[in-house]
Amino acid sequence: MTEHGAKFILTLSCPDRPGIVHAVSALIATNGGNIIQSQQFGDPDTGLFFMRVELESPRGRAPIEAGLVDFGKNFEARWDLDEMGRALRTIIMVSREGHCLTDLLYRQRYQDLPIEVVAVVGNHPDLAPVAQFYGKPFLCIPVTKDNKTQAERELLDLVRAEDIELIVLARYMQILSDALCQELAGRIINIHHSFLPSFKGARPYAQAHDRGVKLIGATAHYVTADLDEGPIIEQDVTRVTHRESTRDLVAEGQDVERRVLAQAVKWHSEHRVLMNGDRTVVFN
Amino acid sequence: MTEHGAKFILTLSCPDRPGIVHAVSALIATNGGNIIQSQQFGDPDTGLFFMRVELESPRGRAPIEAGLVDFGKNFEARWDLDEMGRALRTIIMVSREGHCLTDLLYRQRYQDLPIEVVAVVGNHPDLAPVAQFYGKPFLCIPVTKDNKTQAERELLDLVRAEDIELIVLARYMQILSDALCQELAGRIINIHHSFLPSFKGARPYAQAHDRGVKLIGATAHYVTADLDEGPIIEQDVTRVTHRESTRDLVAEGQDVERRVLAQAVKWHSEHRVLMNGDRTVVFN
Amino acid sequence: MTEHGAKFILTLSCPDRPGIVHAVSALIATNGGNIIQSQQFGDPDTGLFFMRVELESPRGRAPIEAGLVDFGKNFEARWDLDEMGRALRTIIMVSREGHCLTDLLYRQRYQDLPIEVVAVVGNHPDLAPVAQFYGKPFLCIPVTKDNKTQAERELLDLVRAEDIELIVLARYMQILSDALCQELAGRIINIHHSFLPSFKGARPYAQAHDRGVKLIGATAHYVTADLDEGPIIEQDVTRVTHRESTRDLVAEGQDVERRVLAQAVKWHSEHRVLMNGDRTVVFN
Amino acid sequence: MTEHGAKFILTLSCPDRPGIVHAVSALIATNGGNIIQSQQFGDPDTGLFFMRVELESPRGRAPIEAGLVDFGKNFEARWDLDEMGRALRTIIMVSREGHCLTDLLYRQRYQDLPIEVVAVVGNHPDLAPVAQFYGKPFLCIPVTKDNKTQAERELLDLVRAEDIELIVLARYMQILSDALCQELAGRIINIHHSFLPSFKGARPYAQAHDRGVKLIGATAHYVTADLDEGPIIEQDVTRVTHRESTRDLVAEGQDVERRVLAQAVKWHSEHRVLMNGDRTVVFN
Repeated sequence: MTEHGAKFILTLSCPDRPGIVHAVSALIATNGGNIIQSQQFGDPDTGLFFMRVELESPRGRAPIEAGLVDFGKNFEARWDLDEMGRALRTIIMVSREGHCLTDLLYRQRYQDLPIEVVAVVGNHPDLAPVAQFYGKPFLCIPVTKDNKTQAERELLDLVRAEDIELIVLARYMQILSDALCQELAGRIINIHHSFLPSFKGARPYAQAHDRGVKLIGATAHYVTADLDEGPIIEQDVTRVTHRESTRDLVAEGQDVERRVLAQAVKWHSEHRVLMNGDRTVVFN
Repeated sequence: MTEHGAKFILTLSCPDRPGIVHAVSALIATNGGNIIQSQQFGDPDTGLFFMRVELESPRGRAPIEAGLVDFGKNFEARWDLDEMGRALRTIIMVSREGHCLTDLLYRQRYQDLPIEVVAVVGNHPDLAPVAQFYGKPFLCIPVTKDNKTQAERELLDLVRAEDIELIVLARYMQILSDALCQELAGRIINIHHSFLPSFKGARPYAQAHDRGVKLIGATAHYVTADLDEGPIIEQDVTRVTHRESTRDLVAEGQDVERRVLAQAVKWHSEHRVLMNGDRTVVFN
Repeated sequence: MTEHGAKFILTLSCPDRPGIVHAVSALIATNGGNIIQSQQFGDPDTGLFFMRVELESPRGRAPIEAGLVDFGKNFEARWDLDEMGRALRTIIMVSREGHCLTDLLYRQRYQDLPIEVVAVVGNHPDLAPVAQFYGKPFLCIPVTKDNKTQAERELLDLVRAEDIELIVLARYMQILSDALCQELAGRIINIHHSFLPSFKGARPYAQAHDRGVKLIGATAHYVTADLDEGPIIEQDVTRVTHRESTRDLVAEGQDVERRVLAQAVKWHSEHRVLMNGDRTVVFN
Repeated sequence: MTEHGAKFILTLSCPDRPGIVHAVSALIATNGGNIIQSQQFGDPDTGLFFMRVELESPRGRAPIEAGLVDFGKNFEARWDLDEMGRALRTIIMVSREGHCLTDLLYRQRYQDLPIEVVAVVGNHPDLAPVAQFYGKPFLCIPVTKDNKTQAERELLDLVRAEDIELIVLARYMQILSDALCQELAGRIINIHHSFLPSFKGARPYAQAHDRGVKLIGATAHYVTADLDEGPIIEQDVTRVTHRESTRDLVAEGQDVERRVLAQAVKWHSEHRVLMNGDRTVVFN
């Protein structure tokens, strides 16, 4: 036990009512802890209250956690307490396009992206060298009409065996089954190559070109059974003109895709994203 | 006839084939004119060629125009020749929200927006004082279910009587009839308060809030009979968070709306926007 | 005493140490109040802690305030408690360019900008009609080399007589004396027409044009005796190209200026801006 | 000789006067060529005219080139004619930070960045594996106070031996000698990690943090003997808050740096950047 204790991130959500912040700050203070920074948000639409706290606890995790168990009961709260900076055990799934994978692996190595890439899984072998260059295991699980169930089972086995906390679909061109989406709800992040809800479905850049839009975008969202309808974590756009062909849009869109996906993964891994029904609260 | 002649803007579109630029530059040069700047674009999708030229003609308009008549026949070209800086005779149509109107009138007076506001037309009287402050006639044409045809006739009479070249729908909350849209095709600019094609139809900010998007936007487009589907001139977005209510989005969206609409009107008035099927070429 | 009490905004800063959030939330809770939302920030560079709380107090202001007096002593804290939504008593100062004034008055009337414009003060009479249109008193205080001291005294008398809390320099082209800057420290917001610290001093757009930059910007900052060096509240930029003349930059920059200034005034008026030495903490 | 000929990019600049576009289009047309697209710009400040033409020439390069020799004499023009899409022979110079190098090599392989990376040169060996992964030769030329002249000679020998057309300083942390800058004027592109002219010199992110700016940026420019004063090709910014430490700014700035540098290299390689005194004309 030292003067400066271990650092933790606490996130919680519960029905809004007086006394939540006080109860949380009391349980931290009475255990000798200190709040480094925190953010709160009460949503008048859903009646839910959200909170994220970065705290220092000289007496470690146990007393805080014990206090949270009581708090959770009293306030009907969902909460999570994690060591600050701990890397989430992550699988990155890919097909053939490597811009997002390259970007995530670069950031993971050099820019404090707090994920531990346990494996890169591709339905094609093309990106194995990229994984290899960054020293990550690459697993090829081909997906066909016939073996889809089997392929997902293989993935799920890996998730369980390796205690995977996060799956990032980094331009993975397969649709996951409803069952898998539900099993891993809130743990799969996808990058969609359009500014949702515009241009859902296939070939969004071709759709964007046909419509003559002046900005194209990308959307990172949690995956749900309802395709392209999951809670949005982050979006961004870039300007285009009449001169760009669909092929140009694809190339220019890649920059937005990788930036938006990396941002969403970073926020998720730092426990900044809380689920608020079909929407997200992002304490960034 | 002076050393520096009058300045003109020439815009044209025609089927793409060799020799267009040469023919245009030849007709300008052989009449003693000079190209100040120009832009071209050949669209491989539609096979059309687009060109915008700013030129000086010491011998004035007539010889250039005569040359263009021949050119138009030879190249099956649509073309337009206008004096540079001439203000387009314009009607601004409004309902109750004044942010776009205020902005357009301010820019028209102080910032070289090349439009001559012949009248402000409202289906409500609310914004008469704004028009009055900027010294513009305000005409109230209320629209009900019963008098819609009559109201549009009144508008059309005004358009014809006053040689109106441009109608700007500055948050005008009425849908124009198909007949009027066709009659004035390419001459009506609307601002839609969403990043089209997202959130077509009514209450786009409420839709945006429900979907939990992280950027909201606005779209300026030419009005066609197909609602919210006209050729897009300009779009922009602004960042929002989970904290904003629908009401906040409405307020923050107004900034984007007025900026996007003013930009579109400026480009249109400077003859920078050419129609390319359902899309636009914008030589900005 | 009602179920839902009056709403307040509490801001505070003090040396960082354990227990601050707990003390604040305790004093609110023990007085029957509730935290609607709050934000904190501890600056490791300066060792200061900053906090902004939106709270509901069924027993009103007095008990909270009493608690804060004690808190302030115990934690060496500077604090401020204001009624939520109360409009700050404000003077807008102008010269000849009206884009910022027009924008602020428009937003004040229609978009919940929480300022009460007690007077518009110009060193030229040009913008009197704009003030008049929005129903605000206009006071012309011309400034020459000879009467500068006298002119500032007149301003200061007005500030005192009218309990002015905020002065907005909306493209006011005079430099305030050091004495005035100190007297009103933290209460004067200026818009500088460049992306500071680039292009300090006079004619920033001409400087920007000469340097050939690809973005121009604007900076809203608190005014200090050290010209163009005050704490920055907000900045933004817009893209320019080789085609724009200095005059074009001036026109395009106006959009950024008014947007940045309005944003800064809004955040200040909502008590979102706290001073952190020469920098600001902005809880937006 | 085929119906569709080889494609070329012509760039030129000369004193502005009537007839330039006509002369250029005539020489293309009389040789059976066709203008695909072109852009012009006349700078009233410098009196120079700039033009970029994408053209098709069924009879190949020779007749166009012959015509340009005459044109160049008649109009005192500097011109360049290059095969469209030809990759420029390029050296990328690095020190220890790999974000720009990784990005350029990724884009070169997958996104039509038209450069041929002849070698990666580092003054440290750290990034050799990155070059190797992308199959590019890596050459380590350490630079010390004592061997600087020798090191630059080695570089210059390589440039000459390999017909290098472009040198990209991708976070190369050495200052080049005046002699080298002059020898390779207009052929060296640097990325500076600030929004120039703000924060010239060393440690710009620390400077930015101290000043409390709300946006940080990066600037790609041609290298001249006058440090950080070369003609700017591209700039961009990203938003930051009071929460970011200098270290955070460094990490977030890397995204802007690599994007801005890649954009500048792409435009340069596509012959879109023309020198206009200390500024650039960018036909993008």
